[in-house]
Amino acid sequence: MKHLIGIICFLSAAITASSQKIMGFSEANAVKQLEWEKQFDTKLRPADQDEWMKFLSSHPHHVGSPQGKANAEYMASLFKQWGYETEIAVYQVLFPTPKTRALELLGVKPFKAKLEESALKEDKTSGQKAEQLPTYNAYSADGDVTAELVFVNRGIPADYEELARMGVSVKGKIVIAKYGGSWRGIKPKVAYENGAVGCIIYSDPADDGYVQGDTYPEGAYRRSDGVQRGSVMDMPIYPGDPLTPGVGATENAKRIDRKDAITIMKIPVLPISYADALPLLQSLGGQVVPAAWRGGLPITYHTGPSKEKVHLKLEFNWDIKPLYNVIAKLRGSELPDEWVLRGNHHDGWVNGAADPLSGMVAEMAEAKAVGELVKNGMKIKRTLVYCAWDGEEPALLGSTEWAEDHQEELRQKAVAYINTDGNSRGFIGAGGSHTLEPFFNEIADVVTDPQTGVSIKERKYAQAMVNADKAGRTKLAGNKNIKLEALGAGSDWGGFLQYLGIASMNFGFGGEGSGGEYHSIYDSYDMFTRYKDPGFQYGVTLSKTAGRTTLRLANAEILPVDFTSFQKTVMEYTSELKTLLENMRAETDAENKMINDKLFDLAKDPKKVYASPLVKEQVPFLNFSSLENMLVQLKASAEEYQRMYSKGTQLSPDKQKELNEILFRAERSLLQEKGLPRRSWYKHQVYAPGFYTGYGVKTLPGIREAIEQRAWTEAQENIEVVAKTFQEYTQQIKRVLELLKTVADPEKKSF
Amino acid sequence: MKHLIGIICFLSAAITASSQKIMGFSEANAVKQLEWEKQFDTKLRPADQDEWMKFLSSHPHHVGSPQGKANAEYMASLFKQWGYETEIAVYQVLFPTPKTRALELLGVKPFKAKLEESALKEDKTSGQKAEQLPTYNAYSADGDVTAELVFVNRGIPADYEELARMGVSVKGKIVIAKYGGSWRGIKPKVAYENGAVGCIIYSDPADDGYVQGDTYPEGAYRRSDGVQRGSVMDMPIYPGDPLTPGVGATENAKRIDRKDAITIMKIPVLPISYADALPLLQSLGGQVVPAAWRGGLPITYHTGPSKEKVHLKLEFNWDIKPLYNVIAKLRGSELPDEWVLRGNHHDGWVNGAADPLSGMVAEMAEAKAVGELVKNGMKIKRTLVYCAWDGEEPALLGSTEWAEDHQEELRQKAVAYINTDGNSRGFIGAGGSHTLEPFFNEIADVVTDPQTGVSIKERKYAQAMVNADKAGRTKLAGNKNIKLEALGAGSDWGGFLQYLGIASMNFGFGGEGSGGEYHSIYDSYDMFTRYKDPGFQYGVTLSKTAGRTTLRLANAEILPVDFTSFQKTVMEYTSELKTLLENMRAETDAENKMINDKLFDLAKDPKKVYASPLVKEQVPFLNFSSLENMLVQLKASAEEYQRMYSKGTQLSPDKQKELNEILFRAERSLLQEKGLPRRSWYKHQVYAPGFYTGYGVKTLPGIREAIEQRAWTEAQENIEVVAKTFQEYTQQIKRVLELLKTVADPEKKSF
Repeated sequence: MKHLIGIICFLSAAITASSQKIMGFSEANAVKQLEWEKQFDTKLRPADQDEWMKFLSSHPHHVGSPQGKANAEYMASLFKQWGYETEIAVYQVLFPTPKTRALELLGVKPFKAKLEESALKEDKTSGQKAEQLPTYNAYSADGDVTAELVFVNRGIPADYEELARMGVSVKGKIVIAKYGGSWRGIKPKVAYENGAVGCIIYSDPADDGYVQGDTYPEGAYRRSDGVQRGSVMDMPIYPGDPLTPGVGATENAKRIDRKDAITIMKIPVLPISYADALPLLQSLGGQVVPAAWRGGLPITYHTGPSKEKVHLKLEFNWDIKPLYNVIAKLRGSELPDEWVLRGNHHDGWVNGAADPLSGMVAEMAEAKAVGELVKNGMKIKRTLVYCAWDGEEPALLGSTEWAEDHQEELRQKAVAYINTDGNSRGFIGAGGSHTLEPFFNEIADVVTDPQTGVSIKERKYAQAMVNADKAGRTKLAGNKNIKLEALGAGSDWGGFLQYLGIASMNFGFGGEGSGGEYHSIYDSYDMFTRYKDPGFQYGVTLSKTAGRTTLRLANAEILPVDFTSFQKTVMEYTSELKTLLENMRAETDAENKMINDKLFDLAKDPKKVYASPLVKEQVPFLNFSSLENMLVQLKASAEEYQRMYSKGTQLSPDKQKELNEILFRAERSLLQEKGLPRRSWYKHQVYAPGFYTGYGVKTLPGIREAIEQRAWTEAQENIEVVAKTFQEYTQQIKRVLELLKTVADPEKKSF
Repeated sequence: MKHLIGIICFLSAAITASSQKIMGFSEANAVKQLEWEKQFDTKLRPADQDEWMKFLSSHPHHVGSPQGKANAEYMASLFKQWGYETEIAVYQVLFPTPKTRALELLGVKPFKAKLEESALKEDKTSGQKAEQLPTYNAYSADGDVTAELVFVNRGIPADYEELARMGVSVKGKIVIAKYGGSWRGIKPKVAYENGAVGCIIYSDPADDGYVQGDTYPEGAYRRSDGVQRGSVMDMPIYPGDPLTPGVGATENAKRIDRKDAITIMKIPVLPISYADALPLLQSLGGQVVPAAWRGGLPITYHTGPSKEKVHLKLEFNWDIKPLYNVIAKLRGSELPDEWVLRGNHHDGWVNGAADPLSGMVAEMAEAKAVGELVKNGMKIKRTLVYCAWDGEEPALLGSTEWAEDHQEELRQKAVAYINTDGNSRGFIGAGGSHTLEPFFNEIADVVTDPQTGVSIKERKYAQAMVNADKAGRTKLAGNKNIKLEALGAGSDWGGFLQYLGIASMNFGFGGEGSGGEYHSIYDSYDMFTRYKDPGFQYGVTLSKTAGRTTLRLANAEILPVDFTSFQKTVMEYTSELKTLLENMRAETDAENKMINDKLFDLAKDPKKVYASPLVKEQVPFLNFSSLENMLVQLKASAEEYQRMYSKGTQLSPDKQKELNEILFRAERSLLQEKGLPRRSWYKHQVYAPGFYTGYGVKTLPGIREAIEQRAWTEAQENIEVVAKTFQEYTQQIKRVLELLKTVADPEKKSF
């Protein structure tokens, strides 16, 4: 027995030692850091998050609302209380709110849309009618249009191609599109490009309503009169205040004319409920829609046009409104000019409990805990900046204006930006710059899932395996690494990552708290505590995750940047692009042959209007060699850095500082000042929101979107641009390597 | 120019010559046959089919109805008029009809199901209330049950496994299942096996209603009160009269007791409309169903049990009814004892215009045209037998009883059985014995699609290519061969193919005349001529297809049997089985590992009842060698026959007769007298309806179903049975080869 005990002790010691190695820390500092993290966890109290959410969600708190301002002041006073240098950074932004909203079906069976959500006794704040923003899409155009209605499915370009084959044009028509399948702002943009004069967007119950589950308040899903508010600003061009692109919207900032603001929609757009959509959809004539377009209403879906006309009238107050960002800083003890930023927005469309407060209160809990640790003697090497953004919902206003306003300082000082935006129950979702992937995985290994007691990484792996198909399981089996999702649009990282080149991450738990409250009056404290994260178990788990991320970045001796993860990821992206091009070529050739063989003509039902596709231009071969040669160099440098990484801690403090500065500024070299084609604000060459998908990220966007749009010359040009970008990036790694080469070789370890 | 014209003439002659080669005919006889076929086409008049359908569908014509008998007499008189020896073969069969039908939801919000379809002014025969069979499932048990309701999706075994994981049992409950996903009789059978006391089947609008298209009469799809009648007899055990398995149900046949008839359902079963289903489904509590189970009603689907109980009461008249098969023979001029059979049923659930009359009138047109050709001097070598079956709908009654009654004669004489059962507009669908595949393809090459003017084969290929995914297109490209589908259950070939081993085929056009009239009062002349095949264009095309098939089989010098097609197909089936087994092994191992690694436990939502799967027994390796060795021999013989086939016409008439007899009886050697496990009536070892799918065919069923049921010993035994079967089959080919070897080698052709 003695022998066996010995083995157990040995194993246990080995495990402890290995779990005390953390990226960027010497072993001694790692032990200290882990000790602080243990204490950090004990400071995270669900009751705090509950109390804060209750207050912050007690009234509607959109941009310009009294509660929005009160919330900023409430948080600022707490941050101050916890020991932070806190300011409220105010910007003046264009924020339209509705003056007139009318939608009606004309003709013999007229119908007037209700455009209002019901107050419910089961939901205490749902009756705050006077304070609620009505259901609308921010940055819609003013308009008063009367026209036939056409159903355009999701309203993305492929849907219009299908309509064209069915002989349906939207020119001069009002379109009605289902939410989903793209970011909402894409729908009116593409409708306008196709000649429509108005756009209605509705939540179909198949996606967001009774088809998914019982509706609120019996269940969590969207009621028949529930409406998804939301921005339709053309943020894939640039986010933030439409009048001040590229500069902070300070009181005296130079503003462009509203008519010159290209991100404002050109046609009126209105979101409606499925109860309001039903009579409109029932009025549609024309062909029955393709099977993939069907929704969950009890009707046969038709393309239209409608038998009767629809009248849509929208007028807005085009006011400049103040917004209130709360910025709370804790000056770094050693490296005050290196900033680790942590943000979540605080504005909601209405009471916004899940979106955004569930993430906001997790961030607040982190800040409070850090404040207590500091009082207990913890030193934080770098400066922490906790941000509570206003105006995210309309257009990432608060974060974008602040980032633009402080761009010079941020370019110098920002180490990373850690974002959250709401939280729920279930599985970790994580996106971000791929240099930070191994760093994040180390954290995911040690944060415990509150429902199962295993690490959040183990649980994520279990979910992926169980949901994967056979091929997916085979590929996945045993590989527990959490691949960070590439960041497109959707929350406040845009200004930091895509405009300034600051490595960013975004976290949230979800998958078991689904519901239909999104951007409605039902996103309330009552709803959240009943259906989303009762007891704030995952609120605390999010604090543990984002808190560790923030603290480790703040205290690391050498920043935990891994170039090989980045390099592998961009190699995958490159290989995807080559496959995309090859597939397009093969499919184009195959389809062209089928067209020439008249197979489409022969297969179609002669009694229906359905044009065969047209022959497409052949897909040329592109020259990827400059990019591929560059990737070889990137790989070599990245791998060399990986081998030499551990030498970093042996550098002198000054050299370490120099090293870290290169490390965190390396992401800046992934920008190109002239930006992406047709959208110069987006400068990052690896990640961008899709021009025609919105939320959906496009990786290596300059090349990918050009290929997708069959703009071959542009694609070739962008291959060269990306190759040059990676050359500049590789240069940064080489600078790091030069630095590390000044350290004498350490002794070879025997084990 | 002259030279060029020469080439054209040469090519054109070559094409004509080649198109005048048909399987089984010497070149001289092929020319004659093709000439007659041209004349045959000219005799096919759409107006005939229209007139006959109008009469035959003028009143409900189910088994035992006055119109059913009148229709038999009408057809018999026409066949006689066209020159056929015609008889009406009467059998006495058990055919239950409803006495009491009641379905209600009890409790505070009671609901009584309407169980009736509306008369419509747009559909002239829909108001014939007194003559219509009410909505019911034939061969349901009598019953009066009151119990909670549970939703079981499609009601197949996998659905009950999912329910068990969700903690839902149907023991003592009434189940409600959606139509589709299996043959309807599987649903009450599996419900009973799982302990349910009653079964309701409804047509969900997602499958069969407004989700698919506009409802009748505005469109062709099922109305909210439309009901699919149908049999639920356990036909995968044996079809035909439940009281006379294996013998003809003649007046004095020996009958088993009704209580011993195992094909009659053990619990009451009732089909209902989606209007009647809605309140029942709304009454269900319990969990929300898995996404794949959702239907198209405007509710959240739950598993149940229901909050209130459901009362189902069914009583039937268990009467013996006469049925009337029309059998019209034209004695063969040379080989009167070789019969080519052509059949379609004539009974309908109600007015049955599409099902079955659209196929029946096509067959009648063929018989009429043949009669005229014979009057014009055409000789038909073999005996033609045109059959119009009664009682197909309840249980393939007419064809099965006739086949059982005449089994000895049919075993001797039947060359092949050609079935149709309804027809519509669009693309050819063809199933059958794989020895006949090249023969069928030759016909599909020369029958013209009436809408596009290309051959029905070209159009079928275009459809397959356009609907295929990328991988499918690559595989398919250029291969226009129409693969015959394997025949399971679903129409009158059962007695011929699966009980007697007579090579069978089944044809029909479809894909462009979809609707929701199936087994309802709306399957009417009005409906058919408006939505299914207006103008009977495809009725005539079906006559051309089935007519050629019948005539060529009747006149071929050497029967157009191709053993290599059969051999390739069974090799594919064998390879499928091996893949099935390998996949089951890999999946079982992978899933067991996931279970042991607790991945299912970790991935599930702890707030929901959802048991992780249980560890399954490992999948053993089976010994396929006897079967595979046999397939090698089969291949060799089949290929040798293909090389020697053309010698057949050089045999003496006697030897040719001997050869043909071996050829058409070869299919008999695919039977095993003891039948399939647990269902001795099904003797064919290659094709059978699935025990748990019903319509769905199972190829090499003895092996396949044993593997699917994880009955490893039975699977191994059946590998040996099938190997032995193929040995006997190969023996028949060897007998043919011996015969052909008596012919001296023909001169080698130079080209």
